Formats: sequence, C-alpha cells, structure tokens
Amino acid sequence: MDKVYIIGVGLIGGSLGLDIKSLNSAIQIYGIDASETHLDQALELGIIDMKADYEDLINADLVILAIPVDTAVTTLPIVLDKISDDTTVIDVGSNKLAICNAVADHPRRRNYLATHPIAGTEFTGPKAAIKGLFEKKTNIICEVEKTAFKLQEKTLKLFTDLGMRIRYMNPEAHDKHIAYVSHLSHISSFMLGKTVIEKEKNERDIFDMAGSGFESTVRLAKSSPEMWTPIFKQNKSNVIETLDEYINNLKKFKSLMESDQFDDIYMEMKNTNRIKEILNGIL
Amino acid sequence: MDKVYIIGVGLIGGSLGLDIKSLNSAIQIYGIDASETHLDQALELGIIDMKADYEDLINADLVILAIPVDTAVTTLPIVLDKISDDTTVIDVGSNKLAICNAVADHPRRRNYLATHPIAGTEFTGPKAAIKGLFEKKTNIICEVEKTAFKLQEKTLKLFTDLGMRIRYMNPEAHDKHIAYVSHLSHISSFMLGKTVIEKEKNERDIFDMAGSGFESTVRLAKSSPEMWTPIFKQNKSNVIETLDEYINNLKKFKSLMESDQFDDIYMEMKNTNRIKEILNGIL
Repeated sequence: MDKVYIIGVGLIGGSLGLDIKSLNSAIQIYGIDASETHLDQALELGIIDMKADYEDLINADLVILAIPVDTAVTTLPIVLDKISDDTTVIDVGSNKLAICNAVADHPRRRNYLATHPIAGTEFTGPKAAIKGLFEKKTNIICEVEKTAFKLQEKTLKLFTDLGMRIRYMNPEAHDKHIAYVSHLSHISSFMLGKTVIEKEKNERDIFDMAGSGFESTVRLAKSSPEMWTPIFKQNKSNVIETLDEYINNLKKFKSLMESDQFDDIYMEMKNTNRIKEILNGIL
Repeated sequence: MDKVYIIGVGLIGGSLGLDIKSLNSAIQIYGIDASETHLDQALELGIIDMKADYEDLINADLVILAIPVDTAVTTLPIVLDKISDDTTVIDVGSNKLAICNAVADHPRRRNYLATHPIAGTEFTGPKAAIKGLFEKKTNIICEVEKTAFKLQEKTLKLFTDLGMRIRYMNPEAHDKHIAYVSHLSHISSFMLGKTVIEKEKNERDIFDMAGSGFESTVRLAKSSPEMWTPIFKQNKSNVIETLDEYINNLKKFKSLMESDQFDDIYMEMKNTNRIKEILNGIL
C-alpha cells in the first residue's frame, strides 16, 4: 500500500491518516475535503502529505471515505467510477444499509468494503484527530463477501495493525443495533442538555451545581449536528423504534413515581445495574 | 477540631475521612455504620481510626452524616440529641428540604449545617472512597443563617481546606435545581441502560458495538439503587417535573423525525451544543 486518499480529513479520517502514517511513514497520504481550511489544517498537523483531487483517485491503493453519511451515499458511486481495478474503497459511516444499497449494482462493488470503526469523540474537524483512536476498538464490517478477496485481506490487515477487533454483520442488523448503543445515546444526551438549558436560563445555576455525573451524561450533546442529522435521517425507522422504547421506559418510571411504587423504582434500577458487568466486558 | 465522627463510611463519608486525615493526621476519625463489614473495611483502609457508637457522639467536634437521605432525616434529630453544645453536625445528602424541615424546631438546630458536596462516582462503600474527591468541587450550603456562627466558620474553613467552592442556596431552590442537573441525569442514564439491555438480550451484541459514547451516557446506571430510590422519593415533585419536560423534549424530537423535519432536528442539536461552553465553565 503506497498511496492512501482520505476524503474528509476530520476526526475519523484524520485519525486514520495519523495512524496509517505511524504504521508506515513511507505511505503517502492525500487529502480531499470540501473545506480548504480543513485541508490546510490537515497538512499543517501532518495528517496528510498533499492535497488531492477526485481525478487523482485512479492512483489510489486505498480510498477512505470519511464524510457525513448522506454525502457518502452520493459520493461513493462517483469514487468507484474513478478508481483503478486494484483500489480498495472503504467508508466509515455510522449507518451501513443505505450506502451498501447505493452501490449494490455498481460494476466496481467488489472494490468497496463497508466498515464502521466504533470510535470517536464529541469533537470534529482535523484538529480533533488523535493518534491511537482505534486501538482496542471494534470495527464492524458489512457484506464482506461482496468485496474482492485480495482487497478485503489487505484492508482487514490494516485494521488489525491499527489494533482493532473485527466483527462481521449484515447491514440491517448493524443499523438496528447501532441505533440502540449509539444513536439513542446521542439523542438522550442532546435532550438532557436541552431540558437543563431551557430550565436554567441563568447559567450560573448549572455552572455551580453540575457535577461529573451530569458532565458524563450530557457529553454527547456537544456532538456535531452536521454529522448527526444525516445519521438520524438515514436510520430513521430504527432510531424512532429506540426512541419509542426509551420514552415508554421513562413514562413507566414516572408513573411508578407518581403512584409511589418505590419498591418497583428500586427494582428498575437494580436490574439495570447489570450494565456494570456488560460494560466491564467492553472497556 | 480533634474528634470527627463519620456516620456512614461509604463513598462520601469515607472520602471525607481520608481527606480530613490528610489535612491533619492528629485528628481522630471515628466510624459508625449499620454494616460491620463496612466498618472493618474502613478501619483496614485507614478511613477511620476507631469504630464508635451513637453514645460516644457527646465527645465529637464534628459529626458527618453520610447515609441515604431517608435514614438521614430520621437519624439527624437523634444525633442532635446526643451531641455536646460545641459539636457541629453536617449531612451531605442530595436533597436539602426534607432534612432541614425535620430539624427546623430542634433545640439544637444551631449545631447543624446542611451541606451538599457535589462530588461522587457511580461506586459505593468504603472501598469506593478516594482521596481528593472534593477538590475543586462545589459545596452547596443551605440555611447557613440557622447555624451558630462559630460552628459555621469552623466547618466552612474545613470545606475550603478540602479545596471546595462554597455556594449558598435555600433548600427549595437547591432541590429544584439539583433535580435538573443530577437526579434527571441518573434517570435518563438508568432508562437508557434498561432500553438497551431489554433489546439486546444477546449481550454480545452490546459488547461488540458499544463505544465510549454509550459508556459515558450510561455510566450513572451503575449507581446504587439503595442510595437513589430514597432521593427520588424525597424529591418526588421536582423529579417528576424534570421527567415531564425531558419526556416532552424526546417526544418532540421523535415527532420531528416522523414528519421528516430534519432542519428542525438540526437546530435542536445546534442550540444544545451551547452546553459545551457551559460545561467548560464547570470542569
């Protein structure tokens, strides 16, 4: 692998650039981005070696598509049109069904590998890129059988070299589960932030009373609306299902409180404490 | 201050014990706890110097009541009955109105200072106690004017020595605001954990796909139901109000999704991003 092209040099694309360069400094990293400012920052931060253009993709060994999920769906077919027969293209988006469907019949479908590295922070842009972001994280690969064998092999080796665990899933299952463990968390956090901000017009009160528990629960409310709006839109039916269940659980909790059923409230929490062991398995 | 009695040698009581000992190793720390196991652990961990009894409280310079908020309300009057005229008693509970009301007419009201150090973790018991837990944290003091001046002065100096910022509030305002910035976060987190666990019967799916965002949002769902059930019960009306507003915000978000109003979804998130600056002020 000599030439890697990163389309979208933000948090994920940028962090991949840094890590790939660390693995092998001989690899040339090229950046493509709608924002000239981001490209300049990426150059300055050593994330990319050179700016590039879609027309250069013919020279790429690997193309990493790391842009919002709506533009990824329209951009991926164009990228596949421009690459060589030996180029691998991956995307890293938070939904997998729409993008897999978008290229299902593309003549270069076998050059594409659908991936979702479960890693990130609440920050965005090249300045948010960090080395080692993917270490010990999970990468979900979808429809692996639709990618040419030799290209899968090279790309999966790269993920393993970056320290990632690989899991395989079909795109439908991926989008359904990820709605629970990622998309819903973001909405619960955004709405918690909203509820508190609305109430506490005088921000000094939040400032004075909020502790680390609030900070942790509301952290994801710092996330980028530019990135998350298209994710929710694309995964609409799954996200609505999780929201329905979440709202029902909250309503049930409220109604237990209203009727003073605090033994049941206790049990609701006790049963959920099991999340401790589940999370111990993850982190 | 020579003799400090800690009733409830758990996370908060235990951490206070460790910090007070660090400030001045000459201070004798006595422990009282319903659990003999916790007392033994506290001795072993150097949190307390000796086990003690309610009858010994007559010798105390300072009594720290660090037990669940329901038992604190019934225990505080008994403690006040047993102390000397020069003893200060503080509680550290997450609600302040019920406990202030419980001793409003107690002849020793002036020996009591109502405090809420906003500090903690999701863990419990003496083994969860950590040094420096209170550094740079806020301590909300209620009804300071009802405490004897010389006792307030000594106690506030202790908090300042532990590195805490002091804020004054009336108990009604405390309980209302804390419902937003602390109690609601716990419920949102518990219900998020519940929603995901219910869905993902096969825990491997959570294990494989959950990232740091989910971990952060669900962290408080590890908290102790023994501690939190009485808090919700005691602060019922405020907590229900926050839950109402939170549920309404979630429903609105869901309905915007259902009607494909993704520009509004974007704005909901964009407006809430302001939490960044608010949190930067806190932490």
